[in-house]
Amino acid sequence: MFKRALFIGRFQPFHNGHLYAVRTILQEAEEIIIAVGSAQMSHELDNPFTAGERIEMIRRTLMAEGLDPSRYLIIPIPDAPAHRVWVSQVESQTPKFDVVYTNQPLTRRLLSEAGYLVKGIAPYRREIYEATEIRRRILEGRDWSALVPREVYSFVKEIDGEGRIRDLAKTDTAEASGECPG
Amino acid sequence: MFKRALFIGRFQPFHNGHLYAVRTILQEAEEIIIAVGSAQMSHELDNPFTAGERIEMIRRTLMAEGLDPSRYLIIPIPDAPAHRVWVSQVESQTPKFDVVYTNQPLTRRLLSEAGYLVKGIAPYRREIYEATEIRRRILEGRDWSALVPREVYSFVKEIDGEGRIRDLAKTDTAEASGECPG
Amino acid sequence: MFKRALFIGRFQPFHNGHLYAVRTILQEAEEIIIAVGSAQMSHELDNPFTAGERIEMIRRTLMAEGLDPSRYLIIPIPDAPAHRVWVSQVESQTPKFDVVYTNQPLTRRLLSEAGYLVKGIAPYRREIYEATEIRRRILEGRDWSALVPREVYSFVKEIDGEGRIRDLAKTDTAEASGECPG
Amino acid sequence: MFKRALFIGRFQPFHNGHLYAVRTILQEAEEIIIAVGSAQMSHELDNPFTAGERIEMIRRTLMAEGLDPSRYLIIPIPDAPAHRVWVSQVESQTPKFDVVYTNQPLTRRLLSEAGYLVKGIAPYRREIYEATEIRRRILEGRDWSALVPREVYSFVKEIDGEGRIRDLAKTDTAEASGECPG
Amino acid sequence: MFKRALFIGRFQPFHNGHLYAVRTILQEAEEIIIAVGSAQMSHELDNPFTAGERIEMIRRTLMAEGLDPSRYLIIPIPDAPAHRVWVSQVESQTPKFDVVYTNQPLTRRLLSEAGYLVKGIAPYRREIYEATEIRRRILEGRDWSALVPREVYSFVKEIDGEGRIRDLAKTDTAEASGECPG
Amino acid sequence: MFKRALFIGRFQPFHNGHLYAVRTILQEAEEIIIAVGSAQMSHELDNPFTAGERIEMIRRTLMAEGLDPSRYLIIPIPDAPAHRVWVSQVESQTPKFDVVYTNQPLTRRLLSEAGYLVKGIAPYRREIYEATEIRRRILEGRDWSALVPREVYSFVKEIDGEGRIRDLAKTDTAEASGECPG
Repeated sequence: MFKRALFIGRFQPFHNGHLYAVRTILQEAEEIIIAVGSAQMSHELDNPFTAGERIEMIRRTLMAEGLDPSRYLIIPIPDAPAHRVWVSQVESQTPKFDVVYTNQPLTRRLLSEAGYLVKGIAPYRREIYEATEIRRRILEGRDWSALVPREVYSFVKEIDGEGRIRDLAKTDTAEASGECPG
Repeated sequence: MFKRALFIGRFQPFHNGHLYAVRTILQEAEEIIIAVGSAQMSHELDNPFTAGERIEMIRRTLMAEGLDPSRYLIIPIPDAPAHRVWVSQVESQTPKFDVVYTNQPLTRRLLSEAGYLVKGIAPYRREIYEATEIRRRILEGRDWSALVPREVYSFVKEIDGEGRIRDLAKTDTAEASGECPG
Repeated sequence: MFKRALFIGRFQPFHNGHLYAVRTILQEAEEIIIAVGSAQMSHELDNPFTAGERIEMIRRTLMAEGLDPSRYLIIPIPDAPAHRVWVSQVESQTPKFDVVYTNQPLTRRLLSEAGYLVKGIAPYRREIYEATEIRRRILEGRDWSALVPREVYSFVKEIDGEGRIRDLAKTDTAEASGECPG
Repeated sequence: MFKRALFIGRFQPFHNGHLYAVRTILQEAEEIIIAVGSAQMSHELDNPFTAGERIEMIRRTLMAEGLDPSRYLIIPIPDAPAHRVWVSQVESQTPKFDVVYTNQPLTRRLLSEAGYLVKGIAPYRREIYEATEIRRRILEGRDWSALVPREVYSFVKEIDGEGRIRDLAKTDTAEASGECPG
Repeated sequence: MFKRALFIGRFQPFHNGHLYAVRTILQEAEEIIIAVGSAQMSHELDNPFTAGERIEMIRRTLMAEGLDPSRYLIIPIPDAPAHRVWVSQVESQTPKFDVVYTNQPLTRRLLSEAGYLVKGIAPYRREIYEATEIRRRILEGRDWSALVPREVYSFVKEIDGEGRIRDLAKTDTAEASGECPG
Repeated sequence: MFKRALFIGRFQPFHNGHLYAVRTILQEAEEIIIAVGSAQMSHELDNPFTAGERIEMIRRTLMAEGLDPSRYLIIPIPDAPAHRVWVSQVESQTPKFDVVYTNQPLTRRLLSEAGYLVKGIAPYRREIYEATEIRRRILEGRDWSALVPREVYSFVKEIDGEGRIRDLAKTDTAEASGECPG
């Protein structure tokens, strides 16, 4: 049993696959730090939600699921100016951890080179439980409620997250045509 | 009648469609702030001109057109480190405004979420009056003088802006092949 | 009763006055966001601890005190490049809040200008429960255990925080004499 | 007669000495760029006003004084990450200029080393027309209306600039005692 | 004969074409500054190696080749926040130089606009001696030893650079599918 | 005997004490990395010289002293945005090293916490061989030639470094009075 695991993701948005990973990790570690990566990003097609919004959706979900709140922390982590210093930026913003869970190769590489034990997460129906698929369905106006916890779905509705994602899609097209200010 | 409108663009370069928008906005607002976005960018294929050069071309045009100089301000606005703080960066660099004009969806979204009234601009022959088309013609060596105010055309010639755009096109190709330093 | 309060501090380190404030705020609000300010700072005489270390000491304390973990969040907030954009940086990194507690005039001013309700905290024996006094006692080798929760004291011992503060004091003297690299 | 002069200042706030300098420079140059330095700074005791507020006070003053608006531009210039690159940052944000007016030794040095002609400004009753004296009078609650143009005075009143400066003074004291978050 | 030449590249990795260029330049200049561009970048598919690793491979090569170490300097240069200020950033980090060698159009343009003499380098079997080809061969598991100096080959092996490049390739695919944290 | 030592300083300017340290370290290590700290800083009273100028003065000195150029590297290191990530920034910009020499407590602390062996340097007449004393003598117009290697003295004369330091002293006074733009 590990003392504290680091679980890193962007959670744009937090979906059933993420929830499944949290449950799995809590079987192997006493505590979990859920690190909300690229925390400074929002209002982009691939990163629609602010870190605050992502923290809110994770927190509501874990509470509704009845997970013990003394066993998890949710911490925003902004991108570093250079990959090579990202690990020490993570270390400075989080309490100590003794294992990392990720399926992402760059994250795995950086943390391994820094000496951490890095473990993968068994994929849970990855073909549908992934953020890209969710954002695609929102763009196409298809139902996406089955892919995320109930609290995530209602929260995204509450802040008109679907409207935001659709607007951002228009922008990306505008940018490609060179008409994007700011 | 609004007191002061914010009009945001990158103006790479300032063209007839932009000039038409300025005239239109000045029929609905007493003053206009022309915000030169992505001010820190230059010497890129999509952003060839510095903010200073863009301010020069706008200023020369508005003067030649006889617009009342007490009714407009031209202010450079650099990109923010995160979209979510961009609005307050704009607010800190400009005098107060009570309406925003833009056709750009991300800009519209960010300013709307911050509580501003945002209006669109009726497109004025958009198929030709757009910056992308101008840069394309310059790259292909075709005539582009009809798409911009006379002062913009002569200013770009004066600073060899056509040469710069052609050089930058070579760079982008070089970058794609991985041979780009710096 | 407020829904969620924001309580901002640097917590260098978290002391009895801070703990008293948390208890007081939880009598007036359902939830509290404890925002760890100047999160990027550490290893300075006035900011000796990293954000991760500060989160650890707060978390251990609140758990030992038996506070309900579903009622608080601890979130690191780095300084913004400019005061005027700091509020929107806070908003982007935290879930929504409807009241702010602070005795710090700049924080009060910035949040008030942005439209937030800002309340002060009744001082609790401020003459001794303040971070400066604690760091001074550590430097002078005097006892400081009575000024902080037991968990903060043992954690600072555990990471040799006293040694770090004493080293940093030497550095500040070296800097003043112009011999400081880096 | 120069074609275009650069006049650099922080204008915290714009006072009678600055106005006198603008008039003097316009006798020697056809146009003047009024560069609002340290544009990103505000809400500090030495830099209370945002760039936008400073632009507003300068603009109102020059209009009220009847100066020809086709002869001046007001442009915000943020600080550079390093002094050595500051000059090229200024060059990128402003139209071309052929002379610089400043009494500030660092500015003079940087622009001289870059090859610019730099001229001083004959001091105009400097003992009273300086920003520090104005901020001091505001702090002490003494009359300061005679030191600034009428429009600056009324604008600072309008935005409660006096209240802001007094709050910031409290903060600086709090900071010195180590109790400053954020 | 020039006194000191600036030779700019990213050297990801340093290959036979680069070595040939160094030899050629040293026939025309007494000294050469080898500027390691995009110094902050590493752990990206197009920029796998840190500046320190690139300095190591260049240094080992030039020593093994018997070049006079008093005739070259190797200096890391990070990217600038804006192209327009990049030249003065280079100037601030390097000793003075009187000629620049580059085949890269943007670099050429920026340095020419700043008044430098810029010369091209006669291509030396460019079809194979280029960094992209080397990284491609590593990805495909083909032999790449003939394209780089012996010391570069052994150094990349020593730090498991091939493994890193292969991991980064997986990441870029993951990113494209939106599953990339951090 | 160590393989490679890291020697960190700001070298504002490089003086006899620094030269003595380099000689001492080269008796204990095969190679030395001379890391020019705070590389982005210049044109400040405490940091008058650019990294490029500092590299030039060190290089000229070590060559004139006849030190073997294959045994030293001179590398500029900018300050990091946070102390806690400074070590990994150093690691990313330099070849590997197995010992660090410094008398500076913060540097010692940061590198020790990261696991490096850190050694002090026996002071060599520290009362006079220190950068602060040199800058003070320049300001007061007293002779300072005996405190630095001959090449440093002539280089500083060559670039009018004395004039720059005197100008910067005027600026610092101006700043204190609140009249400093930019």
